[in-house]
Amino acid sequence: MSPEEFRKHAHEMVDWMADYLGSVEQYPVRSQARPGEIYGRLPETAPEMPESMADIFADFKRDVLPGITHWQHPSFFAYFPANSSPPSVLAEMLTSTLAAQCMLWQTSPAGTEMETRMMEWLRDMLGLPTDLHGVIQDSATSSTLAALLVAREKATGWRANDEGLAQLGAAGITPVVYVSEEAHSSIEKTMKVAGYGRDCLRKIASDDDFAMRVDLLEKAIEQDIADGFTPACITACIGGTGTGAVDPLRAIGEVARKHDIWLHVDAAWAGSALILPETRDMIDGVELADSFVFNPHKWLFTNFDCTAFYVRDPQALERTLSLVPEFLKSREADAVIDYQNWSVPLGRRFRALKLWFVIRSYGVSGLQDIIRKHIKLAEGLYAAVQAEADFEIISPLRLALFSFRYHPSGIEDETQLDDMNMQLLETLNDSGELYLTQNRVRGRYTIRFSIGQTGTEQHHIDNAWAKIQKTARTLGV
Amino acid sequence: MSPEEFRKHAHEMVDWMADYLGSVEQYPVRSQARPGEIYGRLPETAPEMPESMADIFADFKRDVLPGITHWQHPSFFAYFPANSSPPSVLAEMLTSTLAAQCMLWQTSPAGTEMETRMMEWLRDMLGLPTDLHGVIQDSATSSTLAALLVAREKATGWRANDEGLAQLGAAGITPVVYVSEEAHSSIEKTMKVAGYGRDCLRKIASDDDFAMRVDLLEKAIEQDIADGFTPACITACIGGTGTGAVDPLRAIGEVARKHDIWLHVDAAWAGSALILPETRDMIDGVELADSFVFNPHKWLFTNFDCTAFYVRDPQALERTLSLVPEFLKSREADAVIDYQNWSVPLGRRFRALKLWFVIRSYGVSGLQDIIRKHIKLAEGLYAAVQAEADFEIISPLRLALFSFRYHPSGIEDETQLDDMNMQLLETLNDSGELYLTQNRVRGRYTIRFSIGQTGTEQHHIDNAWAKIQKTARTLGV
Repeated sequence: MSPEEFRKHAHEMVDWMADYLGSVEQYPVRSQARPGEIYGRLPETAPEMPESMADIFADFKRDVLPGITHWQHPSFFAYFPANSSPPSVLAEMLTSTLAAQCMLWQTSPAGTEMETRMMEWLRDMLGLPTDLHGVIQDSATSSTLAALLVAREKATGWRANDEGLAQLGAAGITPVVYVSEEAHSSIEKTMKVAGYGRDCLRKIASDDDFAMRVDLLEKAIEQDIADGFTPACITACIGGTGTGAVDPLRAIGEVARKHDIWLHVDAAWAGSALILPETRDMIDGVELADSFVFNPHKWLFTNFDCTAFYVRDPQALERTLSLVPEFLKSREADAVIDYQNWSVPLGRRFRALKLWFVIRSYGVSGLQDIIRKHIKLAEGLYAAVQAEADFEIISPLRLALFSFRYHPSGIEDETQLDDMNMQLLETLNDSGELYLTQNRVRGRYTIRFSIGQTGTEQHHIDNAWAKIQKTARTLGV
Repeated sequence: MSPEEFRKHAHEMVDWMADYLGSVEQYPVRSQARPGEIYGRLPETAPEMPESMADIFADFKRDVLPGITHWQHPSFFAYFPANSSPPSVLAEMLTSTLAAQCMLWQTSPAGTEMETRMMEWLRDMLGLPTDLHGVIQDSATSSTLAALLVAREKATGWRANDEGLAQLGAAGITPVVYVSEEAHSSIEKTMKVAGYGRDCLRKIASDDDFAMRVDLLEKAIEQDIADGFTPACITACIGGTGTGAVDPLRAIGEVARKHDIWLHVDAAWAGSALILPETRDMIDGVELADSFVFNPHKWLFTNFDCTAFYVRDPQALERTLSLVPEFLKSREADAVIDYQNWSVPLGRRFRALKLWFVIRSYGVSGLQDIIRKHIKLAEGLYAAVQAEADFEIISPLRLALFSFRYHPSGIEDETQLDDMNMQLLETLNDSGELYLTQNRVRGRYTIRFSIGQTGTEQHHIDNAWAKIQKTARTLGV
């Protein structure tokens, strides 16, 4: 395909893209495709001869679109958002055209240096301590993995990377990690990946607000020390996935300092809201943290993937992850950052560009306006749900997240309530009018309501709430 | 930014993108920016108020472009290619517009099901065994990490994920891994990440062709068993980064089967060339492999990131990496694939779409034509370098990679030769006319020549070779 043919096709696609952005509400939020349906539409084998872009694009519209769940639909209230924005898409267009691989400074100085600047911008926008140094990663999971690895190295006297955990275990060193029971499953996953093992993850019970109980944390650490384990890391959760739980960071940080344990803060979703000064009581004590992660690709209008991972001591991170064979050496290495030494994968896209486009295009005040609007929408909906006698709040409003269930009077059997709400959720999602996710809170099946789509307005919330009430009350109960 | 404003800006960018694709040769291949130069052009703090896209785009062209190393330049001969193509960029435009997060089948059935199909297409295009099941990962490093993790679980009786390696080590179980000394540094990195430790990586010496010596592999395994270690994985290298080394897969596979050790094949770069039937002697014995990885984002005209990772037993992979909390459960889970269970990160872009665009747009025959051309160009250049008395081949041609050094008669001091070639490389790269990477082969500093850019033609090779000869001979020797 020549540059001129590309120009022609790309203009056609831009028109479709602009139309899509303007008409996304016409699609069902969650794809209505059945298992195997899209697979069945795609040929079993690759074509031997070239096919025209007109055919490919037509097939995209006919065969692929029905299998898309529209994450950018303003009635997407499932999971957490992975919101995007027009300036972010523009940047992605340029990024994919340059197709630079930014593993080293030399392989695109602008990739590295803009990343450094954008991480500084974000750090300051969130009110994080100025001695934190950031890097863009693919996911919060990968960042938490990196944190657990540095913590592992530090706690074992920098021996685990070389000797391996098995040999350290034989020498009586078994590192352990602490999280709240409300923490994200990714921490359990990274415990497996990093070789700690799930049995070495201490899940600390939470209080009535779903926040980690620091008295139990301290007790667990002391017990582990007495039993000969090596406390390596505490992961504090700011805005947990299930209930938006916020752990008491300062108190946890003081325990971490006292015992010289790495403190990692997982604010994957809630971190973006920290651009609002009025939310920053959530991270009181953050100056005690050793690392901090949040996802601009969740709630800051920047295409996935874009995770911001901060560490206070980048040398410790590099010492943990760096490996520079001859063909990755460069003469500037001492004067620059080679971000491949800050993450597990070697290859890196030019991901800073979309942050630059988004932050400049909206301005900090513009970004604040949208997140404030989301929180205000959530407050209004939360009050509306509270006001209805046959609905029950299960976890309180945190920023723009809460969970509830339908609970008509006279039904007290928990299994029956679970089944009823499961049916409610599936019916709502099957309607295509909105998309919600379930959770279990202290054993009870609940429905999460998470607001954060770029284009969500009051009427989307009103429509969703009307649909929820009507569907619940006609479930045949 | 409204959809109509987006439309206007996106059309402007498309014109720039098409111009860029047509004029990339006008830029220096490797950025000429000095350390800190781009950083210094970016303001210290984020703008409070919105800025116009016209300003942002103008700044992109003025401040960012000089800091880009042009990976899509046809005179890019460094590292391995990370080549792209117009159809791939078109697909990335759509992907970023949909901005679907394909972690679960339900979160975009088309993302999952097209990924399954594309992995089948690629598997068959490469002539891989039909009982391999594929998943798209971000990098070969992450895929090798996944392989080492399954191998770790299998070798420890599925205990490491739960108990952790330290507790297994205390119980006398220490898993070890085998690679050739020519293998990529990523394997050493993943040894650290997965908790094995570098000391548990056995680097097996290679023969004169840089291929792993199977006699030494078997000896090492037997010694480890005698010493009480647990052999977990052998990683065979097909097309190593340094010299393009190809390990004897069948012989290694037989050793792996005999000792029931997981066999992982790293064909990150060379894998794409397997779409040419004439190259498949490289993977004779691949039916003995448990996992296989290659990077379409290197040499198959598909934007980074796009790594194809295959396993024979996906249940083993899922058993190793799956973790499904309540909010990730879905009613279809038993009937579909949720690819988040096949990789470390939870979030996933819709990466299959660009493969679908590229394979259909070129057709298999079109892709074969370009790779055959690259190999032919490399053969011609290799013969030309061999023919010059003052140049020395250091590692033989493998597909489209070889390494050489300038070695004028009368100079036999190795340090002097190293310095001279270092100076040659830096001078060439500083010229902006081409971009090459160094390596060390058996202690000697060498220059790698790697051909694989989408647009590379005979005259780019001719110009590069003329430039190399002229520069070398005027180094002041």
